[in-house]
Amino acid sequence: MALINENYLKLQGSYLFAEIARRITRFKEDNPNADVIRLGIGDVTRPLPEAVIKGLHTAVDEMADVKTFRGYGPEQGYQFLIEKIIATDYQSLGVSLDVDELFVSDGSKSDVGNIQEIFGVNNRVAITDPVYPVYLDTNVMAGRTGELVNGKFAGVTYLTCNAENNFTPALPEEKVDIIYLCFPNNPTGTTLPKEELKKWVDYAKANGAIILYDAAYEAYIQEPGIPHSIYEIEGAKEVAIEFRTFSKNAGFTGTRCAFTVVPKTVLAATKDGGQYPLNKLWNRRQTTKFNGVPYIIQRGAEAVYTPEGQQQIKSLINYYMDNAKTIREGLKSIGLDVFGGVNAPYIWLKTPQGYDSWSFFDKLLNEANIVGTPGAGFGPAGEGYFRLTAFGSQESTQEAIERIKTKLSL
Amino acid sequence: MALINENYLKLQGSYLFAEIARRITRFKEDNPNADVIRLGIGDVTRPLPEAVIKGLHTAVDEMADVKTFRGYGPEQGYQFLIEKIIATDYQSLGVSLDVDELFVSDGSKSDVGNIQEIFGVNNRVAITDPVYPVYLDTNVMAGRTGELVNGKFAGVTYLTCNAENNFTPALPEEKVDIIYLCFPNNPTGTTLPKEELKKWVDYAKANGAIILYDAAYEAYIQEPGIPHSIYEIEGAKEVAIEFRTFSKNAGFTGTRCAFTVVPKTVLAATKDGGQYPLNKLWNRRQTTKFNGVPYIIQRGAEAVYTPEGQQQIKSLINYYMDNAKTIREGLKSIGLDVFGGVNAPYIWLKTPQGYDSWSFFDKLLNEANIVGTPGAGFGPAGEGYFRLTAFGSQESTQEAIERIKTKLSL
Repeated sequence: MALINENYLKLQGSYLFAEIARRITRFKEDNPNADVIRLGIGDVTRPLPEAVIKGLHTAVDEMADVKTFRGYGPEQGYQFLIEKIIATDYQSLGVSLDVDELFVSDGSKSDVGNIQEIFGVNNRVAITDPVYPVYLDTNVMAGRTGELVNGKFAGVTYLTCNAENNFTPALPEEKVDIIYLCFPNNPTGTTLPKEELKKWVDYAKANGAIILYDAAYEAYIQEPGIPHSIYEIEGAKEVAIEFRTFSKNAGFTGTRCAFTVVPKTVLAATKDGGQYPLNKLWNRRQTTKFNGVPYIIQRGAEAVYTPEGQQQIKSLINYYMDNAKTIREGLKSIGLDVFGGVNAPYIWLKTPQGYDSWSFFDKLLNEANIVGTPGAGFGPAGEGYFRLTAFGSQESTQEAIERIKTKLSL
Repeated sequence: MALINENYLKLQGSYLFAEIARRITRFKEDNPNADVIRLGIGDVTRPLPEAVIKGLHTAVDEMADVKTFRGYGPEQGYQFLIEKIIATDYQSLGVSLDVDELFVSDGSKSDVGNIQEIFGVNNRVAITDPVYPVYLDTNVMAGRTGELVNGKFAGVTYLTCNAENNFTPALPEEKVDIIYLCFPNNPTGTTLPKEELKKWVDYAKANGAIILYDAAYEAYIQEPGIPHSIYEIEGAKEVAIEFRTFSKNAGFTGTRCAFTVVPKTVLAATKDGGQYPLNKLWNRRQTTKFNGVPYIIQRGAEAVYTPEGQQQIKSLINYYMDNAKTIREGLKSIGLDVFGGVNAPYIWLKTPQGYDSWSFFDKLLNEANIVGTPGAGFGPAGEGYFRLTAFGSQESTQEAIERIKTKLSL
């Protein structure tokens, strides 16, 4: 008799964005004429850069001709793309990588979700709280946690990030083996300076732990001194895997291309006391369960690295960061406590006195017809906070802030 | 201390196609002027159909315009594609499906590799022998097997398919829980008539087993009476998941789009004696670890279902099946025992007296400069067999057969 994976049953039933969608639908039924502005989900809204469009069209034409048609490509991605990523995104930071240390994929969500497969079940996982839910849920599904008790899964180390500790997670008291870090952070929009990130690299080296570093938002960093890659930290190439994506810098959320760096020097333990390179395991995982990103899409991603492409993604980021400033300053002007939004497209605010995350969600929707994301949806430490994103249009973002200023009763 | 997933260490070191590549490289070094024809890997060579190219270009243009730009799509795939698949591929067979029973993905390799995640570790897995290696390897990686002993993983049921049993697997003697079936078969090119497939559906119903049915090559079926979908068999919607792909019918091996059908009526057991729908589990898996197929690619796949698209993929299939006929008849004419190639793009031949799979590989490469795939690479029962594929060009396929006829010493 076939048995299901019962770990799935530990997961919470209603997923955050599904509950948000439910409440919006109900609101729209009750208020059919309301003009709802969505600043909730982290999805981009601007079209793909011209250079990317050109790269895509050219590649489509290649697929129409028997002489240039491409069938199966390397599961790890085409060298033409990998080489450009390394030269532009890493060598500029003084980080050298071999081509077989970088794996092109269909998305960071896939990679941060699948990476746990190469680790044994008996590893203790640490996540920040609040957190992007995929890190946690995929470990629950793999059986690396106990049951959910009072909003936390047993066997997982939650690293609280809140206004009291300036959103800087403290090193764990118990020993942990796998540490998920995301900076610039989703959902809080905050960053970690080099000296703080170095504490984690040192911890990992001292304890044989592995850091899974999600740098999805690195392109949004505006201030100097904030690391764009964990490999800017000495020793990180021995303990860290890094995830990056074209979703947020080049508008690829619906176009799907990302990459993951697994230096060959990152080793994890075997039961017999040996050590094994994670690069080899990830390569086996990807070659066995994945067949690469569409050739067309990889040519589109490659175009990001042309001079025009680099200019165009800079404009995109500036566009969204202008929105972030609008939101940040608008909320501050009415006396709200606001975090993030300086080096990240997310603004994290403390809900006003008397409101928890979900009641503020309802208040914002009812009074200003604006959708955001309740902080409690990202973990227990997100309660009392709320996320707005800078990915809307300039017009709708300005309109949203105007409404918050004039219609929200505080 | 982070521990690796030690199940990976059970896998065989050298993957089949890597070993083939190694031998070709060495041969080319020794014979730099040899014109090597590859009839080895199952990769298509003809360009994408015109209708698909048109669909792709249109979608690229949509991504350039803020009014038609698409960000995150549904992880399960866009409804415009799902509805066309159901109407064209299933309703025509008398099979009705709901839109939420079909999941669009980036490839059947991903789906047949990931599907095992929704099952518990303590399930007994049955595979045919020879077999597409992904079914087996992904279960090894998940810890559903013991060690490799004499070419077989302990705890796995191998269903022998050879000339003696007409490539028709017999029902297992021990009870099994998860059964992988692929028809038309890779690598043997053989099919299963309805009455044989019905035995498996009946077995699954009687034993609470689940059938994972890989129908990647269904479009190549030429003869009547051979099921295109397992859902043509009564009761299959209670016990079977079906995998399909655009790779082989529309030339999408480098373009990446496939789909998986998980009827809501397929249930598996919980430890407390209950039953749980696999559709819900797969939906949770996909929404947590996958972010959908690129919008552009889904529009390309949609174009397969236009009248022109249907006509063009028919031409593609005819082209390859003409090659299959060339290979099949050519090999027969020199006295070789040949199987498959009638309803599938694969030709499976018995190696001549005195040759095992790998020594025949070397012989064919050395004497005729042709690359095929040693049957032993697909499992112990593939020893003494050899696979050729019909995916080359007409010219190279004819040339290959000419060389086999004239240069191969038998």
